[in-house]
This record gives sequence, C-alpha cells and structure tokens, in this order.
Amino acid sequence: MNAILLKGMQIYAEDQKIEAGYIQLQDNKIIGVGPITNLPETEGFEVIEVSPSFKAIPGLIDIHIHGVNGADVMDATAEALETMSAALPKEGTTSFLATTMTQSQAAIENALINSGNYIEKQQSPGKAEILGIHLEGPYVNKARAGAQPVEFIVDSSIEQCKKWNNLAKQSIKIVTLAPEQPGGMEMVKYLNENGIIASIGHSDATYEEVTQAIEAGAKHVTHLFNQMRGLHHREPGVVGAALLRDELTAEIIADGVHVRPEMVKLAFQQKGKTELILITDSMRAKCLKNGVYDLGGQAVTVEDGKAVLHDGTLAGSILKLGHAMKNMMDFTSCSLEDTIQMASVNPAKQLNVFDRKGTITIGKDADIVILDEQLEVAMTFCRGELAYHRGGEQQ
Amino acid sequence: MNAILLKGMQIYAEDQKIEAGYIQLQDNKIIGVGPITNLPETEGFEVIEVSPSFKAIPGLIDIHIHGVNGADVMDATAEALETMSAALPKEGTTSFLATTMTQSQAAIENALINSGNYIEKQQSPGKAEILGIHLEGPYVNKARAGAQPVEFIVDSSIEQCKKWNNLAKQSIKIVTLAPEQPGGMEMVKYLNENGIIASIGHSDATYEEVTQAIEAGAKHVTHLFNQMRGLHHREPGVVGAALLRDELTAEIIADGVHVRPEMVKLAFQQKGKTELILITDSMRAKCLKNGVYDLGGQAVTVEDGKAVLHDGTLAGSILKLGHAMKNMMDFTSCSLEDTIQMASVNPAKQLNVFDRKGTITIGKDADIVILDEQLEVAMTFCRGELAYHRGGEQQ
Repeated sequence: MNAILLKGMQIYAEDQKIEAGYIQLQDNKIIGVGPITNLPETEGFEVIEVSPSFKAIPGLIDIHIHGVNGADVMDATAEALETMSAALPKEGTTSFLATTMTQSQAAIENALINSGNYIEKQQSPGKAEILGIHLEGPYVNKARAGAQPVEFIVDSSIEQCKKWNNLAKQSIKIVTLAPEQPGGMEMVKYLNENGIIASIGHSDATYEEVTQAIEAGAKHVTHLFNQMRGLHHREPGVVGAALLRDELTAEIIADGVHVRPEMVKLAFQQKGKTELILITDSMRAKCLKNGVYDLGGQAVTVEDGKAVLHDGTLAGSILKLGHAMKNMMDFTSCSLEDTIQMASVNPAKQLNVFDRKGTITIGKDADIVILDEQLEVAMTFCRGELAYHRGGEQQ
Repeated sequence: MNAILLKGMQIYAEDQKIEAGYIQLQDNKIIGVGPITNLPETEGFEVIEVSPSFKAIPGLIDIHIHGVNGADVMDATAEALETMSAALPKEGTTSFLATTMTQSQAAIENALINSGNYIEKQQSPGKAEILGIHLEGPYVNKARAGAQPVEFIVDSSIEQCKKWNNLAKQSIKIVTLAPEQPGGMEMVKYLNENGIIASIGHSDATYEEVTQAIEAGAKHVTHLFNQMRGLHHREPGVVGAALLRDELTAEIIADGVHVRPEMVKLAFQQKGKTELILITDSMRAKCLKNGVYDLGGQAVTVEDGKAVLHDGTLAGSILKLGHAMKNMMDFTSCSLEDTIQMASVNPAKQLNVFDRKGTITIGKDADIVILDEQLEVAMTFCRGELAYHRGGEQQ
C-alpha cells in the first residue's frame, strides 16, 4: 500500500508549526497536512501513530557527500550509489548530490557515467534520491588541495567540463573550483550561463579575485573555512569574502572538528540562516567502525570522530547531517527551524528544486523525517515510502 | 566672556536630533539645549550664528593616541602635551588618553611623571583635556611587538605597575598587555580590581587564553586586528575572541590602512556600534608634512598616508579622529549617530566619565564640535571655550 497517514506529532510545515498534526502521503507526494482536529477520512491509508513529542521535518538534502557505509561515489558502481541511497535516510537525508573528487580523468569519467546512468534509470522511492552530481575538482588550486590528490589537479577546461556533463547526462549541478587558476574565471562564467553552480573551493583566491568571480557568476563557497585562503585584516581572502558577500551561499561542515564551534557561530552571525548550507562532506567510513579506509587512492585513518590522511590533513568527515543540525543548535543557539532552513530549504533552493523539495507542503515530494525528543531520527520517508524506522524493519 | 550661545545648526543631542537648535555654554558646562523656537533670553551670551546645514556633535574622545603636530607623550615634557592638547581640537578631539609606548623603564617613568603632573596642574579649558594615561606595553608579547621595541618588552610586574601609577598620580586608565605572558593573568586581575581597564593587545593569546583573561577581568582589546593572533577556523585567537565575545570592547584604527575597509565592516557587523571604539593611534607626524620622524627611538617614514618602520611594519597612524568617523560611514554605511557612539559615547562610558563627557546634555562639559556639510570640523569648543575655528582666529 502506498498511502500513509502520519498522525499525532508536531509538524514543522512550510510557514507554520503544527502542535499535533497529520501528514498524508500518497503516490510519492504530500497530499495533506494539518492539525489532527481537522483529520480527514483515513480509509485507504496506513495510519502510523506518532508520539506527540516527536517532530516531523522535511527530509534533509546533502549537497556535498562522497560516501557512507563503505561506499563512495568514486567506486563508480551502481551498488555503491545504492548503498549510499539506502544508508542516508538513517541520518535524515532524503536526497543528495553524488560528490566526486579530484582523480584521474578516467576515474572521474567512470564516476560521472555511473552516476548519470543511475540517476536516469535506477532511482526509486524508499531511498534517498540523487539530485545530481557535485564535481569537486579537479579544477582546484594545489596550494589548497587538502585531501584532493595534487597530481590530478588540472586547469579549468570548458571543453572537458562539457564532455563530462554529457557523460553524466547533464546531471552536474555544482562544480567546486579555484577561480584564480588559469581558465577559472571563464569556467565560472560558462557554468553560470549553463545553469550549473560555480562554487569557490580548494582556492587561494584573494578578495579581489573572489569579487571578480562573483561578477562572473559564482554563487557558492565549498566547505567554508576549509581549504581556502583564510581571513587576514588586510587580505580577507575567500573566507572574508564568503562572510561579507551576500551573493555567496556557503557550505559548512558543522562537526566541530573541521571548524571550531565558535567559528561556526561567527559564520552563522555573519551569513544568517538563509546563506548557510549544512553539509557532511562525509566519506565511506561513516557508519562503519574506526580503521583505515580508502579515499581517492589515499589511506585515511578514522578514529575519534575524525578522518585524516597520514600527515594529519582532514580527509572528509564522518558527520551525519541530522547531527550537523543538532550541532548547529548547540554551537549557535539557533532554533530547529533555523537548522531546517540550512539543511533542507536552502539546499533545495540552491539546487533549484524548491518546487518539489525542502519543505513539508502539499504537492511536494513526500520526503519526511520524524525526530524524537532528542532530535534523533526515528523514521524517514523518501518520496512517500518508509526508508528507515529505528528499531523497526527496513522496508 | 565665558557664556556662548550657538544658534541655528542641527544638534545631535543625547537622545534626539534637533533640526535647528541652540546650545548654551557657560562656566565650561552645557547649560541649555533645544530647538531655536524655544530660544531663551540671550543677554549676557556671545551669540554665534551657525549655518542650519552644520551639525553640532559631542566632542570626540581618543583613548589611544601617542602624538600629533611634532609632539609625543614620550617626549615627557609639558610642552609636548600642551602641543597635543592644542592641536587635537582641529580634528574634533576634545579629550584623550596620553598614550605611552614600550621604552626603557626610565623613559616610561618620565612620561608618566610628566603626564601625571600635567593632568593635575596644567589642564585648562579651551584645549583638549587629558583624561588619563593609556600605558601601551611594556607587558606585551615580543611575537606581536609591531612598532613596540622588543628590547624593552618585559613580563608583567604588579609592583612596577603600582609604582608607575603612583608616579602618574593615579591617572593610568588603560593598560595594554599580553595576558598570555608570565604574570599576565595576575596583572589583568590586579588592574580590574583597581579600576584600571585591562586591554588585550600586542598579544599572541589563543582563544582559551583570552577566555581566561576575560574571566580575570579583561574588558577591552587594543587596535583590533593589528598585532594580535589572527583568526583561524580552528584557533580563533584574539581576533576571533574580540569578534565573538560581548565582554570585550574593541578599539579600531579606521584609516583603511591598518585594517582593510571590508574588514572594518566585518568588525562593525560583529561588534555593533556599542562595542567598537574609534581611535587614531596617531604619532607625532600627524598634521606635519611627509618625512622621517622618531617613534620610541625608531625612525618612522611617513608618506602616502602611512607611517612605517624601515621594514614596512606599520608604526602608528596619521589618522584624524574626525576622519575615522567619516571613514566608518564610508566603509560600513553606518550613520553619523553610530559614529558619534563609537567616537564619543563609548569611550566616555569605557573611561567611566559618561557623567560629564560623551553627549550633548545639560550639565555635561561643554565639549562641542561643529561639522560642516562635508562633516569636516568647522569649530570646536573644549569645556566651553573656543579651541578651534576654521579660517578664524584661535582664541
């Protein structure tokens, strides 16, 4: 049966909070939302009673994630993407961008072809939806490589990017690049003209160069603070520009490891809830035990909540997006509504899918997360189907 | 005659703006303020007609200034202080802290004795009032010395500081120090318990060390951004702490040279108008022509609006406080009222003299600046007497 009625919980709907409400899901969509005092006919619906202390929020959207549960986008297999799509609802994520990393041309092309095919043919309700691809590199700056292997970093090439987007069946949504590198500004312009988000990241750009990139159409900053020119009082760099310029939305990894809690707070104070997007940037070890894992051909050691290369460089996170929301509330004293904005509304708007994602609204995809009193994920619905039920059977 | 009536100009009074107003000055005090429609009896007053497009604002208070017009506090002569007090009204400054710098014990003591004597005996209306002493160093960090000669930097000594404040006749109001250096935290505590402002500056303190200093009583940060540990996303340093912690007011040199305009804006966005204090940190070359000048035994070259040591280190400014206000409006789009807050209200409150300085209010000292349409200083009154009249005779 494909018609579900969730009943009893608080609902964080688009423009209001309902204390004791219901949500009707049918044919992958939200077809009803309201207070239980207005409960409609329930015949034909599977009724799920939810505790009045639980909260229904829109599904989370992770626009920067490499892997989880042993799988990585660069594995370039349908199984890997399937594993990710199946695992992510557990942390509240109901859609995401399959994020590549700087690798050989062949490895990137394999990942793009695989992701493009998967998005075209293998998406199905009941697991997280892949909304497209985030191409992180290879057009970045070696001086700010971080965990992107420097040997594969290259100058921006519009021809190559065109070819790659064709291989990916036009599913590239974000390109993280260093605009200050050769061809960078032209690439920003090309991306912007073609409806792809140009995101400044792994970049050593100065404030002037960022300004030039904004004029060329850059709209986004990849994992604010990490792997970019830092803030100095006479050269604000990418960090300063990101904090100061409203034209730029900024991703942030709110695990308290990549960026110190106080600095997450500073970013929130500067950018506000409308210009920050929570991401995980997680790698395959998330949801697995501590140990050594592969990231783009490099050995990454995972322990103490960190994933690091042998030299200590942070190499992706093991952060869960639902926990990023809780961390934001801890670090900044913001509200749950604010975190919904940063983990659901803003990414949906940035990816231009706000007509069908990002809020609990009649007519939108039935991507719903039920949080318990501790704001931990109790249930997740992906396009109308139960994708995760804590302590219950995965269907 | 010592009774003056200013008539016709706009007045930025304590809680209101009067479009066409009057101010009565008598016996060094403001005795009347209001709209000219309520103009009182003018007999016995020298009436000065002021253009209705001119603005009366409270006199500016510079809590960090070393010198102007060839004179420096470290000259340790009454003439030097006299020169400063006579020159500063030209830029709108009606009171200030005589600011020492890191020098030999003897040189500092001479400056303290001289300033203490001057404050006690030689202050008179009609020129800027010295409200006390800002002791900048020698208890700072060699790693963040800037233009403070490293050979004279020493660890904090409460005994010495006590002795020095006695030599200065208890007129030390602010001590700039590095709390992370030996004895630093104890010094902060001592200063706070004795009503002296402990200001973190020329400091390499970490965020934790600043937090500890705040707990010990630190309330202030010396020239925000300059000569302090900068902001990193995993170590926010003094800069990050200053931006994040409301317990700290912060001085800023808004000349666009010491700190880039965009970063002044960032500071304003974070601290707001109530937690920033405009200062000049100016040296003796201000108001003189370009050339080579002495600063604490070091040769300083002044040109292109900058004062630098031979290695390019910035060595004080040649900024005028009235221009710092105009710069703030340019850099941040703040209002004239906001700049009055930052250059007059806040320093008066910080120095605990708000009962007699900082606003145009009946009963307070008649420290009044008249700005023209371009917000340049046209006239300045210091405790009721004309101290500067552009194009007119200095009385």
